[in-house]
This record gives sequence, C-alpha cells and structure tokens, in this order.
Amino acid sequence: MFRTIRQSFRAFGTIGVLQMRKKVNFRYPAAIVLGTGATIWWTTKRAHMDRRKQKLNLTNFMAIPITSVQQLEDNPEDMKTKMELMIMKIQADFCRALEAEEYAGQKFRIDRWERKEGGGGITCVLQDGEVFEKAGVNISVVSGNLPPGAVQQMRSRGKKLADGPLPFFAAGVSAVIHPRNPMVPTIHFNYRYFEVKDSTGEKQWWFGGGTDLTPYYLNDEDSIHFHRTLKAACDEHDSGYYLRFKKWCDEYFHIPHRKECRGIGGIFFDDIDEPSQEDSFAFVTSCAKSVIPSYLPLVQRHKNDAYGDLERTWQLLRRGRYVEFNLIYDRGTKFGLHTPGARFESILMSLPLTARWEYMHEPKASSREGQLMAVLKNPRDWLQIEQKP
Amino acid sequence: MFRTIRQSFRAFGTIGVLQMRKKVNFRYPAAIVLGTGATIWWTTKRAHMDRRKQKLNLTNFMAIPITSVQQLEDNPEDMKTKMELMIMKIQADFCRALEAEEYAGQKFRIDRWERKEGGGGITCVLQDGEVFEKAGVNISVVSGNLPPGAVQQMRSRGKKLADGPLPFFAAGVSAVIHPRNPMVPTIHFNYRYFEVKDSTGEKQWWFGGGTDLTPYYLNDEDSIHFHRTLKAACDEHDSGYYLRFKKWCDEYFHIPHRKECRGIGGIFFDDIDEPSQEDSFAFVTSCAKSVIPSYLPLVQRHKNDAYGDLERTWQLLRRGRYVEFNLIYDRGTKFGLHTPGARFESILMSLPLTARWEYMHEPKASSREGQLMAVLKNPRDWLQIEQKP
Repeated sequence: MFRTIRQSFRAFGTIGVLQMRKKVNFRYPAAIVLGTGATIWWTTKRAHMDRRKQKLNLTNFMAIPITSVQQLEDNPEDMKTKMELMIMKIQADFCRALEAEEYAGQKFRIDRWERKEGGGGITCVLQDGEVFEKAGVNISVVSGNLPPGAVQQMRSRGKKLADGPLPFFAAGVSAVIHPRNPMVPTIHFNYRYFEVKDSTGEKQWWFGGGTDLTPYYLNDEDSIHFHRTLKAACDEHDSGYYLRFKKWCDEYFHIPHRKECRGIGGIFFDDIDEPSQEDSFAFVTSCAKSVIPSYLPLVQRHKNDAYGDLERTWQLLRRGRYVEFNLIYDRGTKFGLHTPGARFESILMSLPLTARWEYMHEPKASSREGQLMAVLKNPRDWLQIEQKP
Repeated sequence: MFRTIRQSFRAFGTIGVLQMRKKVNFRYPAAIVLGTGATIWWTTKRAHMDRRKQKLNLTNFMAIPITSVQQLEDNPEDMKTKMELMIMKIQADFCRALEAEEYAGQKFRIDRWERKEGGGGITCVLQDGEVFEKAGVNISVVSGNLPPGAVQQMRSRGKKLADGPLPFFAAGVSAVIHPRNPMVPTIHFNYRYFEVKDSTGEKQWWFGGGTDLTPYYLNDEDSIHFHRTLKAACDEHDSGYYLRFKKWCDEYFHIPHRKECRGIGGIFFDDIDEPSQEDSFAFVTSCAKSVIPSYLPLVQRHKNDAYGDLERTWQLLRRGRYVEFNLIYDRGTKFGLHTPGARFESILMSLPLTARWEYMHEPKASSREGQLMAVLKNPRDWLQIEQKP
C-alpha cells in the first residue's frame, strides 16, 4: 500500500508538509481515477523496479523518506542511506508503540517538511493525549554548507577543518515524551550521524546521542530497569561504554544555576568514530533499539497510578526545570535556534505542554519530592558498578 | 517606627534574609524588654543622630537598605547613595500600589539577601494573588571585582577598561508583573546604574533601563496611554529620547526564531552618560516614576473583565513566549545566571507561574489573538510620530 502512496506522490509531486495518514484514504481512490496513462506508467515503473536488487520496504515509516527513494535504493551501502533508514524505522516503531498505549485512539500528527538549504525532516507530535500530554518524535536529514557558527563550534571541539565551504550531511532522530501521569517519567533520546568534507577533500564523520530519563517521583525498580537496559545495549559493543557514557550523561544534563541534574540520567556521548564506521553505526543502532524496552514497561506499569493535585503541581514545577535546561543550556536547542532556516517548531516540540515556576519552592527533604531532589543533586550509581574513589 | 526597627537590627546584628513585616510585631515589644542598658544606648544614639544634618527617612522601604545607613547618611551626594535610595523608594511605592489592587489583603513576601562577594538585594514577590498571579519586584546593590565574562562583554560594547582587577558598583530595580486576568497586560521595567574603576584610577559610569508592556489582547486606548506616559517622562529631558528608545525597545524585546516581538514595546536604553551624571539620574528617575501612572490604570480598568478558557489558554501560550525570550535572549538573565554567586531565585522570579507550549499553534488572522500577532510581527507607531521612510 505504501508503495502506491509513494508512487502517487511522485505523480503529484512532493508536498512539503504532509499529514500522511489522513491522505491515505484519499489518495488510494485518487490513484484509481488517474486513468490508463497513469496505470501504464505505474506498471512500467514497477516492472523496472522489480529488476533491481535493492528495494526498500517503506511500509511502516511515518512518511516517505527525505532523500529520494531512488537515491536510497541506488546507494544501499552508503552510511547516509543506512542512517536515514535506521532513524525512520526507530521513529515509526516508537510512535506506534506510544500510540498503542493510548486509550481513545489518539494518533501522532505527522508533518513532513523540507528545508530550502537542503534536506528536511518528519516531525511527529501527539498532543493532549490521555496517556501522553505531549510526545514529539522528530527525524531530520539535512545537508548544505556548514554555517560559520557551527564551524567555530566544531573547531573548538577539536575537529580539524580547512578553510573554504564545508559541505555537510546530518541525520538524526530525537524525541521527548511528557506523559500526563506524574508517576510516569519523561524520556528523551537523540541519535545522530554527521559527515563533513573540507576543501582538501578530506571527509570526517562521527556519531552522537543518548537516552535519559526524567522521573517526577523516584522508583528504584524503574530506574534500575532503565539503566540496565541501556547498559545491555552498550555491553554488546564495549564493556566500558556504559560507565563512561553514564557519567557523561550526568555531567551534560546538569542545571548549573540550580546545582541539580535534570533527571536520573542514562547515557550520553558524542564524537564516536571508532573502532570503525560499521561498528559505530551498530552501537548507535543498538542504543536506539533499546529505547522501547527501556521505557515502555514504565509507561505500562504507571499510566493508571493514582495521583492528586500535589503530584501534578510537582510535575509541572519539574517541567519548569526541564524548560530551563533546554532553553538555557542544551547545545542542540541553542545551536538549532541560532541556525538560519531552522524549523523552530520541531526544535521546541521538546517543551512540555505546561510548566510552572514558583518562587523559592523547596520540598521537605523527607518528602517524596525531597527524595527525588537528593538524587538530582547527587547522581546515583544505579547498577552499583562505579568505582569508589 | 521604622527607625526603631533599624536600630533593633543594629542591636541584634543584620540578618541575611528577612521577612520584615512579620518581624515588626515581634520586635516592637522585644525592644521594650531590652531593659535600661539598651534604652540608654538608644537614647544616646538618637541624640547623636539628631545632631547630624543628613537623616534618611526609611519609613516606607520594604526593608532596610543594603548599604549601611551610616554610609548612606555620610555620603548623600554620592550617586551610589542617590541611586540606592531612589530604587528603594520605587520598589516600595510600586509594591504598595500593587498590594492595594488585591482584594483579600495579599502582600508581598520580602526577602533581603546578602551576597558574599559584596552587597545584596531585596526581592519582593507576591504569588498566587487574586489580581496578580505572580509579581516580582527586586532591587540589588552589588559591588566587587568584575568577573572576566562581564569585562569581555563590556569591552565588546566599546567600554575601555585597563587590565587588572576592576572594582565595580551596580544598583538597579527590576520588576515583572504577571496578572491573572488575560485582559490585564504584563509589565516589565528595569532601571540601573553602573560604576567601574580601572587600575589607572579612571572611573566610568552609565545608566540603563526601560519599561515595556506585554498584553495578551490588544487595546488601543491602553497602549496609547502607556506609550504616552513614557513619552511624557522622556520629553521632560530630551525631545528625541522617546522615539530613539521606543525603537531600541522594539529591537531588543524581539524573539528572532519566531520573528515576533515579546509585546507592544515601550522604551529601552543603555549606556546613558550625558549630558551629565545629574541629568542622566534625573532622566532615569522620571522613567522609574512613570511606571505606576503608565500601568496601574490598566490594572484598575481590566482586573474584573470577563474571560474564559480560550483567553486563559492564549495567555499561557503567550507566557511561553515570555519564557523563551527571557531564557534564550535576555542579556540580563543570561548574564545573571552565568555569574558565580548570583541569586538565581531573584533572576528567575520574572518567569510566570504557569506557561504553555502547543505545537504549531497559530491563531486565525481575523481573531483577537491574530490581531495581537499582527502587531507583534510589525510594531506599531502608537503615538503616530515616527517618520515614514
């Protein structure tokens, strides 16, 4: 069925912002009324494609890929292709898994957008659901020449880049899920691949990403399950990864002016480029695939937990902190908003539907809120594997 | 009465964070039971003070000044003294005027704080009132050596500062008032004085500040009243000020990623150091004094206007934009949060009690919300005095 849609898109031209599923029912009969000419074109095209070895299964993607299907099919071994297809699948699997937790059939709105400087993205948002108050899952596949700010930032991180125009390619998936029930934590993840060529023809590439959890109330069993799942994904590739990237995560998701972490961490890394491109890709893929098993059990366990005004108010206060981190410190958000032509709605989909700021709010140390604060001030070694100094 | 309090503070030592009014009832009888020794000390002190020419009337201040009363009384002509007393009075007058609009006697909470690097401040917050959802009025009087970040920022703004330690003094008042009723606009103002000496002994000083309005629904009469009041304050000093500072305000309170202004503007300026220090101070004082007449009539006119869920939701969405501006772009907030030892609760008191972010929210152009957006995208010449290009 998706093949049909894809081809009718080719016939009609690509549209910048799509709400795919709404269009499916419409386009299917539309394809039928196209008449004989289109049918011949379609049959010929299908026969041509059948002769080729590499065919993409686009069945479950949220929308058609950003790169043309032809180009993806022609370059199956290119890391750009692999990454785009991987993030498309992660996006679709995650969105379907979240939709399945809703009770009244709430679905993600799907916006496929293009960037005039090159590439585009697919932004999926489920807002005001019964289970998810705001869930955003975005992929972007962009290319062009690096803006000066980005060059400066990369050089400061140790990347050697010659002068002159710097063509780049970046593909990534990122998501922030804010559930309604304060007993269900917020999750964030982001996995990305970056390539840049300089005028000497030298190509550099690296992967980055991470998954982290922001609970409103501590639950040891949940926290251990979450960290254990991430550790298992890391351990498949390097037994030192989890510990290293867990610490990096605690350091990164930190709100300096409050001297507290945003949540209970997870993993975070950047500049992964060894032992090989294939290995790095396999590692990032494992991490991305571990998101559903790390998080969905927590949603299922707690989405019907009882709570009252006090817990809701605390959740909104913590969401205020989430906003502070994202708008003041998060490199991705800052970089995104300062990039000309960036789609700010896709960057700011990470913000909660509602947040709250009370002057001088401080929970009692002995309260459940105070117990969370103690861990946010002093990150815990959830799996009891960190070496004591 | 305040004199008594001040002296009992001297007797008991200064306490960092005070809730003054709560303490009045307690300390008044406390002073009585101090006994003969204290009474003699007190009488002698009062007689000594009566001999001096400069006496401060501290009656209505929200708390005792940051600088010692002795030092203020000994240096009445120093701009540091004048500025501190001016902002203390502005703070007190504004807080009392707002309290008078509440129905159930809600009062400002008063926190007097000290900064270990030098100086301190008085933060007054009225939260969850019937008329004001969150109102913060802060003064700070700080001194010390300029942190390197501040030096760099000032040099980039053209200030010539020699190497070596740079002792500075800064005093300012700032306020953000978020009313509950969406028909009452949010107001922000800030007036400040800055002095810095470099190792060559050269002293530089300047004033800065501004007042701006953020309505949720446009009301031409209100907007014109607001701008006209600011213009009158400017016109007393320089007939070119209003136009120049109105444009500066529209440029400063702009959210680049949304291509919209935060509100309908007002005035904004920095680096005012002419024609003389006295004239600059008189100008800033006029501006600060114009806050109450510019704003209070709007509160009185609309605090009981009818509104529903739709208007409340729109107000919260616009408050989300307020948060975006303050956390991403506002120089004062950024600078404050990156200054070691800054009191972040006083900086972030500007954030609303509640804010909201909806993905891709866009009001219809013909709606009242859309009419506000048109003005935020394209600032209006409220007093019809700007020259057409």
